[in-house]
Order: sequence, then structure tokens, then C-alpha cells
Amino acid sequence: MFVAEGIRSAEELLASRMRVVGALVSARLLETPRGVAVRTQLDQSGASVLDVSEADFTSAADTESPQGILVIAEVPRHSFDSIDLGPVLRLLVLDGLQDPGNVGTILRTAAALGVTATTALPGTVDLWNAKVVRSGMGAHFHHLCFDSTWDELDAFRASTHTALWGTEASGEPVEPIRAPERLALVVGNEGGGLSPAARARVERLVALPIGSAVESLNVAVATGIFLYLLRR
Amino acid sequence: MFVAEGIRSAEELLASRMRVVGALVSARLLETPRGVAVRTQLDQSGASVLDVSEADFTSAADTESPQGILVIAEVPRHSFDSIDLGPVLRLLVLDGLQDPGNVGTILRTAAALGVTATTALPGTVDLWNAKVVRSGMGAHFHHLCFDSTWDELDAFRASTHTALWGTEASGEPVEPIRAPERLALVVGNEGGGLSPAARARVERLVALPIGSAVESLNVAVATGIFLYLLRR
Repeated sequence: MFVAEGIRSAEELLASRMRVVGALVSARLLETPRGVAVRTQLDQSGASVLDVSEADFTSAADTESPQGILVIAEVPRHSFDSIDLGPVLRLLVLDGLQDPGNVGTILRTAAALGVTATTALPGTVDLWNAKVVRSGMGAHFHHLCFDSTWDELDAFRASTHTALWGTEASGEPVEPIRAPERLALVVGNEGGGLSPAARARVERLVALPIGSAVESLNVAVATGIFLYLLRR
Repeated sequence: MFVAEGIRSAEELLASRMRVVGALVSARLLETPRGVAVRTQLDQSGASVLDVSEADFTSAADTESPQGILVIAEVPRHSFDSIDLGPVLRLLVLDGLQDPGNVGTILRTAAALGVTATTALPGTVDLWNAKVVRSGMGAHFHHLCFDSTWDELDAFRASTHTALWGTEASGEPVEPIRAPERLALVVGNEGGGLSPAARARVERLVALPIGSAVESLNVAVATGIFLYLLRR
């Protein structure tokens, strides 16, 4: 299960294929027409809805300005088998990213830029952590994302002939990026970069050609630029 | 004045041209050689250093894992007059951005991608807010950034023949971007987008060509991609 807060999340969840199990609701939800509509949809959905006081809601909510709605839904059971394989594949691989805000923003970016799927390797923050879901701004409900292991990724890559590139500030500057049709791009931890397991596997270490770059880029921004350059 | 926390910030501040006024230090700082070196530099710098208990330090610090050093420095007095004008100008204009993490990340990106300067218009979070400084990861100490008003920006643009573009998801998709030599790019608020004052002034509203894009991009990621495409 995972938790998503706020009216917009509830709307998107109810409109998606995800299974909404329950909701925590306070009187505040009914202060806006959108909130009333969400409440009606929830009641019709068969989810169990629990009405609580404003104080109880605030103690359960994670956001600073709660909107009176917190939805509980099932984490979809996805794996590499869920990927709808075409000639072009853009797989994003998260290798030990720890900051929930970064991971949520990266999922949002992947969804917006047409990435096929995102997979999180061991050591990465839980994709369905409430803060990741919040930063994802609805991406979780549309974009295919799931946990996996290196073994599973190895097997998938071997059977689908998918190349593996890693991103690193000291890598080979690429521009324009001439990428294989099927590519998995690994992004490493905020501080430590790629794991030894990633380094042992990647065919190329690539960097953005940003010149002398005394400064480094935030990982979500760097990933965003890479995914933009790699989109098809 | 502004506050910067942590060993790395202290190192960068002491190595920069900024004026360090004082520091709050706890015993933890002396647990690492880097910390000891920072302490020595601080003592030699003439800044007033106050030693406090771990408990007092934690109550003053904003970070979750304080490193025993909090530096107080002067906000540099910059304005459009500080811009070293060449044939190419890339000016980033923040129009009402509210999230400190976004603004810090944008400053870090601007510094890394060679933006000439960043200016914050009224309604934007304080560039020297501790959270903005922390997300900036040292960008504030190298990258020219300052507050300004629309009047000041208008006068600067008129005297330097600088074009003004605004970014908006529904704007005209541009790629490749053929930008004027001197360009100011305005980025709007996370939720509300560009202000009426910006809309009244921009010569073009531009968007990233990301297709149907049901999803939008985080403002720091979108700005990062724009600045990458606009770099010279």
C-alpha cells in the first residue's frame, strides 16, 4: 500500500487504473467543489472512507497545508515483464538515490519526457514513500515504475539487447547523443555516484558537456537534461 | 547577512571573496581534519568565532545532521551594474518562485551552466534564505545573483538591448533554440506561472517541445533544460 495526499492526487488516483483501498477525510475537504466531487467519487468507488477530525487528520498528514484528503492505494505489482517492448526503449535505472524529493522529481520528469519505465535498484529510497509520491506529482499513477535487482536487470538486458550507460560528471562528454535504440541509463547516488555493481556493468560512462564545470548539477536536473536529450 | 551551514560551505565561503563576519562552532567540528583546517582558517580570518555546546548548536542549526559549523557572512551588494557586459548575455529572471529548494537548485544549475547572472524579482523567495543557500551548494559564492525590480530590469534591458523571453508550458515549442546574443529568460511561480508584469513585457513565450505532455516538469528541471539549450 502507499499513501497519497491532497485533492489533485486523489483525483488522479481515482481516474487511474490503480486500486484505491481507503481514504482518510476531514471536513475541510468539503469546502471546495473539487473536494466535494472527490468525496462523491470515493463513496462510489467502494473504498472505505474514514471521516476524522481536523486535529486527527493533521496528525496523520505529512503536508504542511493539508487539504483534508489522504488516499491509501495498492502499490501495483510491476516488473520488467510489464514493459511493452518496442523498437525504441528508454529505461531509467536508479542506483542508490536517497533523497525522496529528487526521486519524485525524476519520476515526474521521466513521465513527462516519455521514458518507457523507471526501475529502482536496491539502496534506492522506496519509490512509494509518501514524499516520493508527493514530489512525483501524479507520475506514479501513469509512469511504469518498479523495484528490481541487478540480476533481474541483467536478464532483461540480455534478452532484449538493451545497452547500459552510466552517467557521471567525469564521464565522456556526449553531444549530440547518438544513443542505441534500446538504452538503459543508470543514475547514481547524490553524493557517492554510481555503485561498484553499476561500474562493473556499464558500457559507457557519459557526461553532459558543460565545460570546466567547477560546479556540479543536482542529480534531478542532470537526469532531466539527459532524458531530454535522449527522448525519441 | 546570511547563514551557511556545514564544512563544505565554510570552505567555499572562506575561499571566496565574500566577507565572513562570524561563525558558530561546536566540538564536533574538530572531529575531522577538514573541520580542524576550517577552524584554523576561521581564526585567522578575523571573523568572530563563538564556541557553543552541541545542544546549543543543534538548536541553531537548520540541517538534520549538523557538522558543527555555521558561518555568518555578508550578503554582497550587487545589482545590474555588477554585470560584466560582453557580446553574449544570459540573464535568468526569477518571477515569484516560492520554493527555497527549487530556487537553490536553479542557482546551482545557473552557476554550472555558465549563466551570466540571476536576478530575483519581488515575490520570489529571498535568495539568501538559509534553505536556498543550502540547496545552492555553493553557487551563491561564485554566481552573480541579486534582487531587483521590474523598473531596474526594464532600464537594464533598454540600455543593453537585451531581449526578454518567458517560459510557459503552453508557449511556442523551440528547438533548436536560436536565441539572441543577449537574452533574459523569465521563469514564473511553481503553481501560477508568469506574473501579469512578466506577460506584459515578454517578447516570446517559449516551451520545451515535449510533445503532448500530460505531465508537466518541475520548474528547476525545466529551467535546467532551457539553460542547457541556451548555453554558449
